[in-house]
This record gives sequence, structure tokens and C-alpha cells, in this order.
Amino acid sequence: MKLFSSMKRIFSRLGPFPEHLFSILVVGVGCLVACEAPSGGPAEEATEASPAAPPVEWALAIHGGAGVTRAGVAAETEPAYEKSLQGALEEGKKILQGDGTSLDAVEAVVRLLEDDPLFNAGRGAVFTNAGTNELDAAVMDGESLSCGAVSGLKTVKNPITLARHVMERSRHVFLVGDGAERFADEMAVDRVPADYFFVQRRHDRWRQVLEAEEEKTASSAAPPALPTGQGRYGTVGAVALDRHGNLAAATSTGGMTNKRFGRVGDVPVIGAGTYANNATCAVSCTGIGEQFIRHTVASDVSARMEHGGRSLSEAAGEVIGEVLNPGDGGLIAVGKDGSISIEFNTEGMFHGSADSSGRFQVGIWAHGD
Amino acid sequence: MKLFSSMKRIFSRLGPFPEHLFSILVVGVGCLVACEAPSGGPAEEATEASPAAPPVEWALAIHGGAGVTRAGVAAETEPAYEKSLQGALEEGKKILQGDGTSLDAVEAVVRLLEDDPLFNAGRGAVFTNAGTNELDAAVMDGESLSCGAVSGLKTVKNPITLARHVMERSRHVFLVGDGAERFADEMAVDRVPADYFFVQRRHDRWRQVLEAEEEKTASSAAPPALPTGQGRYGTVGAVALDRHGNLAAATSTGGMTNKRFGRVGDVPVIGAGTYANNATCAVSCTGIGEQFIRHTVASDVSARMEHGGRSLSEAAGEVIGEVLNPGDGGLIAVGKDGSISIEFNTEGMFHGSADSSGRFQVGIWAHGD
Repeated sequence: MKLFSSMKRIFSRLGPFPEHLFSILVVGVGCLVACEAPSGGPAEEATEASPAAPPVEWALAIHGGAGVTRAGVAAETEPAYEKSLQGALEEGKKILQGDGTSLDAVEAVVRLLEDDPLFNAGRGAVFTNAGTNELDAAVMDGESLSCGAVSGLKTVKNPITLARHVMERSRHVFLVGDGAERFADEMAVDRVPADYFFVQRRHDRWRQVLEAEEEKTASSAAPPALPTGQGRYGTVGAVALDRHGNLAAATSTGGMTNKRFGRVGDVPVIGAGTYANNATCAVSCTGIGEQFIRHTVASDVSARMEHGGRSLSEAAGEVIGEVLNPGDGGLIAVGKDGSISIEFNTEGMFHGSADSSGRFQVGIWAHGD
Repeated sequence: MKLFSSMKRIFSRLGPFPEHLFSILVVGVGCLVACEAPSGGPAEEATEASPAAPPVEWALAIHGGAGVTRAGVAAETEPAYEKSLQGALEEGKKILQGDGTSLDAVEAVVRLLEDDPLFNAGRGAVFTNAGTNELDAAVMDGESLSCGAVSGLKTVKNPITLARHVMERSRHVFLVGDGAERFADEMAVDRVPADYFFVQRRHDRWRQVLEAEEEKTASSAAPPALPTGQGRYGTVGAVALDRHGNLAAATSTGGMTNKRFGRVGDVPVIGAGTYANNATCAVSCTGIGEQFIRHTVASDVSARMEHGGRSLSEAAGEVIGEVLNPGDGGLIAVGKDGSISIEFNTEGMFHGSADSSGRFQVGIWAHGD
């Protein structure tokens, strides 16, 4: 029923416009998947309704980007992605189970995904138009609403850790470019040479996109288009609730293949790609960054809960299924009650979730596929 | 009553914490001022209640920053500020009265304020730690939710116009640093040499702050603090409703005096310093950028209206009076019904407002001062 109503929501928005035809194709096999805590709903409510069901003490959700398509990921490589997601989930679980903080958990998970060349963040970052790698990240603490964001990093191995330093060791929230690199000079963070980010697969993809764009420009009088679109983006992220009741969110990305002009996406824009607030939820997004900025997606999920009285599942479902266009992307979220929501309107999203009730699962495609 | 309840809201939040003592002093003479459309409320409601009262066909509010204190602005210079605000308001009024769009109006108003050395934006931008000027701006169209933002510009005379080009002539939303300058190379925008931004008063202020910071660092083992605080920030902005029912918001700034590390404030962060949505309102903020990012201030005003059913005045009052700390800053907003809200929790904010009912006023301090 959930799946049907989600699909109905999507198709009811498509209208007669020709520009939506591509989206229809993209989403033809896509769907939305919303997962609540296995206890059957919010922990507090569950406790009231059934004293036997233990409340969720901690919860964790992770993602590795929503830009994945079956055409782009060969079936034989799926186990490698799943293994990476399981490893990251295991790391976060260990921290949360051992009474660690949600901030430590989301940072550790995102560091692992950044170090993994499979995902578009850290080591596996895509290439810019100039053939460089420029990385963005953000972290937010739901207890204090403190946050830190960095953009345009070129030598920092783990952008998420520098973002946490911005949050905890500066009075600022958002540092970019050479200035952020100078801040990294003053912090004890691992630095790497440019070739650390060289991943053959990413480089090949960049050359393909570059050549396609050049061909397109040569055959047209129009100014060169800025790149966008399906398959060119990716992100990693984690959201967690710890045993102390604190929420945290972290997101990291290499941005969009062949990006130009110092383009910044939604990841370091607090409220767009990353948001956490103990009053509501923690959210990390992935998809076409511009759409997530316009619709302030991460904070809108929180606002619908705080001001509109929606559940996490309702809020996340509305934003991904009604506010955004099919094919735009997805999000992971953990509510203050430990409920988990994983929503995407693309063909797939690398995702995983775990909680204190024993839940531990990873996946790529929508449920049932 | 409004004033009293606003003050009560502020003081009830101060609590026993010593770090609030400074804020108490700052806000001692500050207050909140909320202005509704002179017709006595939302235009549509006014029409129902009294058929004689014409609906508000267009409305405009502008600001020139909330970092202003009586100690910082000599009484004899106040008329110069007021004259500048009147000139900008007049320009916007002319466009809106002549059936122009809200986007054209907010861009034109912000361009004038950028060209005016009195305000911290464009020509009057403050100096960074490196003795340079780095400018940020953002614009948002409430009809389409399209938006454009730029950060770290060094040679663009009118950052707001480049932000509009990002919105209308690129597929992106947010361009920063050298990349944004390269985008400017491809657009027909006015460029200026670095000394265009040299304003003696700003340079003197920067030297003062720089020396104070160096002294502080020399006498302490702590790492150099990133600058923040009262009197070091400023912004300009405009929000408008046009006769077609479309809302738009624009904000521009030179950032924070002596800023380091490529610090980005709230201005180019859509949802923090700038937001517009025809379903609710258009908002432009000014103040301590980090606080406006953490609390996603501009989009929160909209979310409280959209999801919580608040009026513009209630939503803006809650965010400035309850969510933010005293001394953090202020905002201007225009609702979809043409109501205008001007709220600040600092000693003063350069502001102005006009609408089709004949309202035309500028001010610096809270009402009644």
C-alpha cells in the first residue's frame, strides 16, 4: 500500500510536460521505501502500547549515494558495495552499542566511506572540469545545533573530520576553498597528495562526460551548459541517535562529475543536504544538489515534524515523494524516537540501517526488487 | 503590548548564564518592531472585513544591516543613512508601481545599496584578515523556487547581479571563489579593480580589529580566535511582492571584518539568510551569520507559516524573539498577502518599507526611540 501510494504521488505530479518524459523513464522501475523501527513505530509510543517491546536505545542509518542505476552497477559488483556498507554500519553500531556519541558514530562511518574508492566522497571523489578533485562535507549536532561545513577541499583525506573541527574548534560554521585548506593547516588532519584521489573508473567517467559536453558545445551556438543529471552525482552520509538521546548527521561528497565554476551542491549547505535537531530528527541527503538547496530538504523534514506534527516517515515521504521531482535523489533520517526512514525517488540508493533492537540491513534497490 | 511581550520573550530566555551578560547590555535598549500592512492586516482579510480598504498590490522592505549601534553611528550621520535608504526604497517602489517584477525590484534595490559605501556590501565591503574584500550574495524567486548564490567574489561590482545570472543562466545554485569569478568572465557583469572597495572608514576599522586580535593572541596560549561579535557584521537586502503575486528576496554582504579561512556566512546559504516562496513569504536576514545558518532562519519563518499556520508576523517574531539569542540580528519579510514584517533583536537595523497603500518609511532604531 505504501509503495502504491508513493508511486501514485509521483505520477500524479508528472503532468503533461514533455520535460518529464525522461523522469518517467528513470523512475519507471524506481519506488520509495520507508522503514520504521521494527518495534512497530516510535519507541515511546511502542512502550505505551506494549510494555514488552523495549524502546530503541540507539539507531543508525547510512547511505552511499542515490545516483546508482542498474545500468551503472554491474550485478557482480553489488556484493562489493554491500560489503562496504556492512563494514561501515558495523563500525557505527560498535560505537553506539558501546555508549559512544552519535557524533562519533556518524564521523567514523563517513570516514570509512570516504576512504572507500567505491563511493563519491574522499578517496573516490569524482573529477571536476579542470581534472581536479574538490571535496565538500558537513556535520551537525542535534543537541546544540552546532554545525560545521567545508567546501572545495583538495588535500584533506577526510573532509568530514575537518568539518567537525570547524564545528568544535572555530567560531564559524562554513569554510571554503583555499581558506579551508589554511584552516586544515592549523588542525591535525591527514593530508594527501592529489594522486590519492585518482581512481581509474572515475577518471574514465570524467573523460566521457567531458568529451560529450565538448561535442555538444561544438555542434551548438549555445553557451556551454553546466553539467548535471542522472548518474553524475553521489554522496555518502550517516545519521544516528545515541543512548543519550542525541541526534547527529554527517554528509560528504566529491560533488558532480565535470563540475565547473566552483559549483557547490547541497552537502555543505546546512538545512539542504545535512540537518540534525534533537527536537525532531537527523537527516542526510543525496541527489541533485540544486534541487535539495531550493527545497531546503533536510530542514524541511524537520520543520514538517516540528511545526506540522508529522511523523518522521510522513515528513520524509512528503518531501521525497511530493516536493521533489522523480529522479532527484533520496535521504536517510533517524527520528528522536529511534525510528528510521530511508526514502528515495531514484532507481537505487546505497543504504543501510541498524538499531538496538537487532535491525541490521543493507541494500541498494527499493524493497522487493 | 507587542513591545512588552517581545522584551519579556527575550529576557525569559537569558537565564542565569554569565555568557549572556553582554547580550543583556546590548539588548538593554533594543527591542523588536513588527509592522503589518497599514491596512490593518493581511490584504485579503482586510478586503473581506472592509470592502473600502484596497488590497495591497505590491509591497517592499529593505535593510542595510543589523550590526548598527548608537555608539557606532554618530547622530549627525543618521540622515545620510536615511537618505540612502529612501533612495533605494524609491527605486524599488518605481519598479513595483510600474508593474515590474519583484525580482527586478529586489535586484535594483540591492545594487543601489551595494554601490553605496555606507553599507557593508559591494563598494562598502569590510576587509578580510588578508586585507582583501570578499563578497557574497544570493537571490531567490518565490514563484519557481529558483535561486542563485555566490561567495568569495573579489572583482564583481554587483554580486547580486552575478547571483541572478547563476539563477537564470546556469543550471547551478551556488558558485564560490575563483570558479565564480570565471563564471563572471562569461557573463556581462561590471568588474572593478581591488581599490574600488577601498573605503577609509572600513580600512581603519579592520586595522583596529586586526591589532586587537593580535594583541589578544600574543597574550594568550590559545590558538587565534576566529573573529565574530557585535559591530563587525553588516548586510543589505530587499524583499518584495509584485502585482503578479510573486515574491522575491535578495541579500548581499561584504561579510565579517577580518574574516579568515574562507569563512562563509548565512547570506549565500539559501534558507539561512535568504529565502522566498510564493506559498508563504520572502525573507532577507542580517546578523551573526553562524546563528542564522544553525537555525535556518529564513526558511524557518516560511516553514512556521506553511506547516504551523502562523501569520508572517507571528513566525518572524518567534524566530527573532525566541529561537535566536538577543543581539544575533534581524530580518525583513514580505508575506504573500503583502504584509510586511521587520524584526530585530539588536540595538538597531537600517530598514525601510513601502507598499501600494502609500506606506513609505525608513528607520534605524526600534519604534518609539
